[in-house]
Amino acid sequence: MTSSFSTVGLIGRRGTATIRDSLEIVLKLLLEKGVKVVVEADTARIMGNGRRKDRDRYERAARLELGERADLIVVVGGDGSLLGVGRDLAHCGVPVVGVNRGGLGFLADIAPEQIEAALGDVLAGRFREEDHFLLHARVMRDGAEVAQSPALNDVVVHQGGMARMMEISLWIDDEFVYDQRSDGLIIASPTGSTAYALSAGGPIMHPSLDAIVVVPMFPHTLTSRPLVVRGRSEIRVSVGGSDQNARISCDSQVDFRLESDDDVVISKYETPLRLIYPLEHSFFESCRSKLDWASRLGGGSE
Amino acid sequence: MTSSFSTVGLIGRRGTATIRDSLEIVLKLLLEKGVKVVVEADTARIMGNGRRKDRDRYERAARLELGERADLIVVVGGDGSLLGVGRDLAHCGVPVVGVNRGGLGFLADIAPEQIEAALGDVLAGRFREEDHFLLHARVMRDGAEVAQSPALNDVVVHQGGMARMMEISLWIDDEFVYDQRSDGLIIASPTGSTAYALSAGGPIMHPSLDAIVVVPMFPHTLTSRPLVVRGRSEIRVSVGGSDQNARISCDSQVDFRLESDDDVVISKYETPLRLIYPLEHSFFESCRSKLDWASRLGGGSE
Amino acid sequence: MTSSFSTVGLIGRRGTATIRDSLEIVLKLLLEKGVKVVVEADTARIMGNGRRKDRDRYERAARLELGERADLIVVVGGDGSLLGVGRDLAHCGVPVVGVNRGGLGFLADIAPEQIEAALGDVLAGRFREEDHFLLHARVMRDGAEVAQSPALNDVVVHQGGMARMMEISLWIDDEFVYDQRSDGLIIASPTGSTAYALSAGGPIMHPSLDAIVVVPMFPHTLTSRPLVVRGRSEIRVSVGGSDQNARISCDSQVDFRLESDDDVVISKYETPLRLIYPLEHSFFESCRSKLDWASRLGGGSE
Amino acid sequence: MTSSFSTVGLIGRRGTATIRDSLEIVLKLLLEKGVKVVVEADTARIMGNGRRKDRDRYERAARLELGERADLIVVVGGDGSLLGVGRDLAHCGVPVVGVNRGGLGFLADIAPEQIEAALGDVLAGRFREEDHFLLHARVMRDGAEVAQSPALNDVVVHQGGMARMMEISLWIDDEFVYDQRSDGLIIASPTGSTAYALSAGGPIMHPSLDAIVVVPMFPHTLTSRPLVVRGRSEIRVSVGGSDQNARISCDSQVDFRLESDDDVVISKYETPLRLIYPLEHSFFESCRSKLDWASRLGGGSE
Repeated sequence: MTSSFSTVGLIGRRGTATIRDSLEIVLKLLLEKGVKVVVEADTARIMGNGRRKDRDRYERAARLELGERADLIVVVGGDGSLLGVGRDLAHCGVPVVGVNRGGLGFLADIAPEQIEAALGDVLAGRFREEDHFLLHARVMRDGAEVAQSPALNDVVVHQGGMARMMEISLWIDDEFVYDQRSDGLIIASPTGSTAYALSAGGPIMHPSLDAIVVVPMFPHTLTSRPLVVRGRSEIRVSVGGSDQNARISCDSQVDFRLESDDDVVISKYETPLRLIYPLEHSFFESCRSKLDWASRLGGGSE
Repeated sequence: MTSSFSTVGLIGRRGTATIRDSLEIVLKLLLEKGVKVVVEADTARIMGNGRRKDRDRYERAARLELGERADLIVVVGGDGSLLGVGRDLAHCGVPVVGVNRGGLGFLADIAPEQIEAALGDVLAGRFREEDHFLLHARVMRDGAEVAQSPALNDVVVHQGGMARMMEISLWIDDEFVYDQRSDGLIIASPTGSTAYALSAGGPIMHPSLDAIVVVPMFPHTLTSRPLVVRGRSEIRVSVGGSDQNARISCDSQVDFRLESDDDVVISKYETPLRLIYPLEHSFFESCRSKLDWASRLGGGSE
Repeated sequence: MTSSFSTVGLIGRRGTATIRDSLEIVLKLLLEKGVKVVVEADTARIMGNGRRKDRDRYERAARLELGERADLIVVVGGDGSLLGVGRDLAHCGVPVVGVNRGGLGFLADIAPEQIEAALGDVLAGRFREEDHFLLHARVMRDGAEVAQSPALNDVVVHQGGMARMMEISLWIDDEFVYDQRSDGLIIASPTGSTAYALSAGGPIMHPSLDAIVVVPMFPHTLTSRPLVVRGRSEIRVSVGGSDQNARISCDSQVDFRLESDDDVVISKYETPLRLIYPLEHSFFESCRSKLDWASRLGGGSE
Repeated sequence: MTSSFSTVGLIGRRGTATIRDSLEIVLKLLLEKGVKVVVEADTARIMGNGRRKDRDRYERAARLELGERADLIVVVGGDGSLLGVGRDLAHCGVPVVGVNRGGLGFLADIAPEQIEAALGDVLAGRFREEDHFLLHARVMRDGAEVAQSPALNDVVVHQGGMARMMEISLWIDDEFVYDQRSDGLIIASPTGSTAYALSAGGPIMHPSLDAIVVVPMFPHTLTSRPLVVRGRSEIRVSVGGSDQNARISCDSQVDFRLESDDDVVISKYETPLRLIYPLEHSFFESCRSKLDWASRLGGGSE
C-alpha cells in the first residue's frame, strides 16, 4: 500500500479552467499511488477533456457525498476555494489539503510545482494536521432560527445600501458590550484574522489560538477597537430597527438579509476543519511572504 | 464571625498622602469587622497621624511578609498600585482587592465612596474572583539568567537613547517570526491590553482570554501588525548587537539594560494574581467608562 | 439699522419637528432686529403652528430662490443639515450660519440656548467668516459627464452590494498612483476630515488647509495609507469593469450608480461655502469637545 | 560647454567605504564633462585610494564652504545622507542631487547603475527641480533661544528615559490644541511624512503640499489623531515640568535635552532644499516601490 488514504476526493476551484493542469497532475499522482479517486461532479466537467482512460478510472460525486466517502480531500484553487470546502464539508470530519495557484497560501500551501513531492509526502503519511475552527452564524427572528451558515474566515454584519452607517448593539456571553454606530462588525476566527479583519485593523491571531476577534468597521466612536474574546464565547449582534438593508455575509461568499429586530448569534461551529499541511509548513513563513514583512520603509532612515 | 477573611493586609499607593482618607475608612471598616489588620510598613508611615488607638490595633509588616501572612490584601491607590502589588505578591497566592482614587478602574474597581458597601460585601464573602495571569520576563546572557521580573501589564523591549530605531528578532515557541526595525516591542497580557499596548494599536483582550499580544512599536515595515498567541507560548526577543541602549521595562515600573546578544524570554508567570471584584463588576462597563465608548464623532453625521 | 444683513433666509433640518422651538426663537430674533425673513418652503410647513401674526411677517421661498435672495442664511439642525445647504447653495455665495441641536458642532456651532446672544452678535456684524471649500465629483462616461454633485465633506467610491471588495485605480493630476483592491475610497475635504474619513483612519486637517485627503477603505494592501494632496489637485478614480454595484456618494446624502469604465473625477468646487461663526469659535475646541480629547486611558498607567 | 553647472560639489555618506565605487564613477563623469569638482574633505579621505591623477584634479573643502562654492552638489549615500546635507546646506540655496545605494529613494533617486545616464542628463540641464521645505526647531528658555536646528524630515519631542510617558501641551498659531499624555510628538514635513511619521500612523503628504503634520506617539487618549496644518503655521510644544529626560531630535540625527518649562517652537525654515531629480522621477512610483503597494493580502480573498 503506497498511501495512508484509501479514497481521495478531488475538488477544483469553481468556474476556473486554468487549474486544469494542476488537477491533472494531482489525478495522475493519486492514480499512481493506487488510491480510489472520487472527483466532485462540477470539477469533473472542468476536467472533461482529460484522457479517456483516466476518466474511466475515477468516480464522480456531489460535494457532500464526497465529504462522506473520502478519507482525504484535495482542493485545487487557493485559499478562497478552501473557504467553501471548509464551510460545506467541515462537519464530515474529513481532512482537507489545498493546492494553490502559485504563491504561498495561508490555507492552501502546496504550490503547483510541488504537487508530486508535497502531495506524495502527504499520501505517504508525512504531514501535519492543524484544526481550524469555523464560526457558526445563526439569524434569530422571533425566537426561531431563520438562517444559518458556518464561516471559516469571518461573519460580517454590514449595511448593504447607500447609507453605510448602521446602529449595532453587541453582547458577549449575554453581557452588554456597546451600542455603536459604524459601517458594521467583522467577527473573525484565527483563520480569518489574516484576511478581511486584518484590513480593518484587527490583529493577527495564531491559528492555534482559541479566540474570536470582533472588529468594528469605521466606528463613529474613535475609541472602539478590535476585541479578542475566548473561542467558546457567544457573540450576539443586533441591528437598529430602521436599518432596512442590513445583511450578514459569511466568508464574503454566503449572504443573508436581516430584518428589523433580528439577532445574529455567532459561536464556534461544532466541528473544525481538519487541514493537512506539508511538514515544513510554517504560519509565520506564510505571514512573512504574504504580508511582505521583509520590506521596509525608506524616506531617510538609512 | 463577620468576615470571610481573618487577616487582612493593607497597602497604599507609594508616596501619596492624598489617599490617607481612603486608608482610614478601610482601616475603620476592617477593625469593625473584627479582622486582624496588618499594614505595610511604608503605608503605616503615610497613616502616621491616624488616631492612636487605631495604631495600636494594627500590626506593621514589610510587603513580602504581608503577602505571606494575610488572606486578603486591600490596595488603595488605583490600577498603578495594583501593578506593583501584583508583581510583588502574586506568587504568594493571596487574593487582592483594589480601591481606586475615583473613577472606574480596570483592576481597582471600588470607588472611595463605595468602600463601606463594596468592601463590606467582599469581607462578607460576596465577591467575584478573577485570575489575571502575569508575564515573566527573563534576560538570558551566555546561557544564564541575569535578570528577571514578573509583569502584570506588559514587558516592553525598547531603545532608551536618542536613536530610537532598533533591530529586533522575534521567535514564538522557537519558531522564527521576523526581523524588524522599529522603536521596540510591547508584549502584553490581557490585563495590559487596555494599557500601553492599546495606545500602540493592540486589540483589547478579554481578561479571561489565555493569550499574549505582541505589538510592534512604530515598525519600519508597515505590514507589521499586533500578533496574538497562546498564553502558554514562549516569546523570545533578541536585539541587534549594536544597540547600546536597549532596555526592557516591566509595567513601565521596573527596568533593565540589555547588552549585546542578550535574549529576552517572556512566558506566563507561574502564579496568577487573584483579583477580587465586587459582584457587579463588569469588564465591558469599565471599557465603556474608561474608553468613553459612548461618545461619537460629529462633523456631518448629525 | 440693527442688522448687518437686510434679508435673512431660514432653513430647518428636513423632516424634524423637534427643532421647531429653535426655529421660533430664531424667527423672533430676526423679526425683532427688523430684517426681512424668508423661510424655506419645507421649513415653513414645520413651523405651521406658529403664531399667525408671525406667519404674516415672513415670506416663503424654495431653497434655491432663498440662496439668491438672502444675504445671510440661518440653518437650524446640526452639521448634517449644513451639508445639504452647502451643496445646494454654496454656488450662490451667500454666507451661512448654523444652529445646532445641542452640543458643539464643527459646522453649526451655535447652541440652542445661545441663539439670542450668538445670533444677535452675528446680525450686529460681530462674527468670523471661514471659507470651507467643497469637492466637485463628476462621473465621466465615454467622454461625457453623466452625473455631478458638489460635496462638502466627502466623495465616497464604494461597492454597494454583498461582495464588498472592488478594484480601484487612482490618478492624481494625471499621474498614476495605484491599483488597489479595497472596499472603496474616501476623498475628503478638510471639512470632511473630521467625519467619515476620520473613522477610516484619515488625519484631521485644519479647516484653513488647502488640501484633499484620499483614504482607502480596508485596503487589501496593508501599506496603503491616507494620502494628502493639494487642494487644486484633480483626483481620478476608475473602477474595475466587473464591479456591477459600484457607486459614489456625496456626503452620504447623494448617490450615483457607476457603470463599467466610468471615471470619477474629483476636484475643488468652484465656490466655497462661506460659513459664519461666533467670534469665539475655535476649531480645536470643537475637536476637544467632539473627539473627547480630555479623556485618557486607564489600565495601569497611574 | 557640456554642463549646465560649472562647479560641482561631491559628498559621500559619512563613514561608509562601500560607496567608494559610486563616488569614483561620479567623479569620473564630472571630470569628463569638464566641470570643476570640489570634494567634501571627509569624503576625500574615503576616496583616498583613487587614482593619483584624479586626486590632483579636484579640490577639497569643508561642507559649508562646499555649499557656498558649488552650483550643484552630488550626494552619494541614500536618503539618510541627504537629510544631513539638507540641514547643513539648504540655507546656501545650492541645488542637490542624490545617488542612492540601490533601490529607489524618496530623495536620492539615482541608482548606482544609472549614474552615467541620469547624472549626465542632470549636468546637461535635463532635470526637474523640486523644493522641499525644512522645519526649523527652536528651543526657548526664559524667553531666549538656547538651541535650534533645521530638520528635513521631522522634529520629534520625546522622552529619553525609562518612563516613556510624558505630558505635552500643544499650540498651533498660539491657539491651544490639547494637553496630552503620550510618548511624544512627531512634527513632520511632507518630506518626512513617508519616514518616521508614517510608522506612527501619519498620512502620506505629497511633496508639493504646503503642510505640516503633527503625529502623537502612543497617546493615552485614543481619539488623538494625526493633525495636518498649514505650512506657515507655528507649532509650539511644551513639556510638563517633571519630565527630566525630555528631548527633541531633528531627523533622528541631531538631539537636544529639554529642561523644565522649555518651549519648542517649530515653523517652516526660511530656505527650502532645492532637490534635483531625473525627469522621469515620480513620487508615486517611489511610494509604489518603497511601500510595496503592489503586494496584497491573502487568506481567503481569492
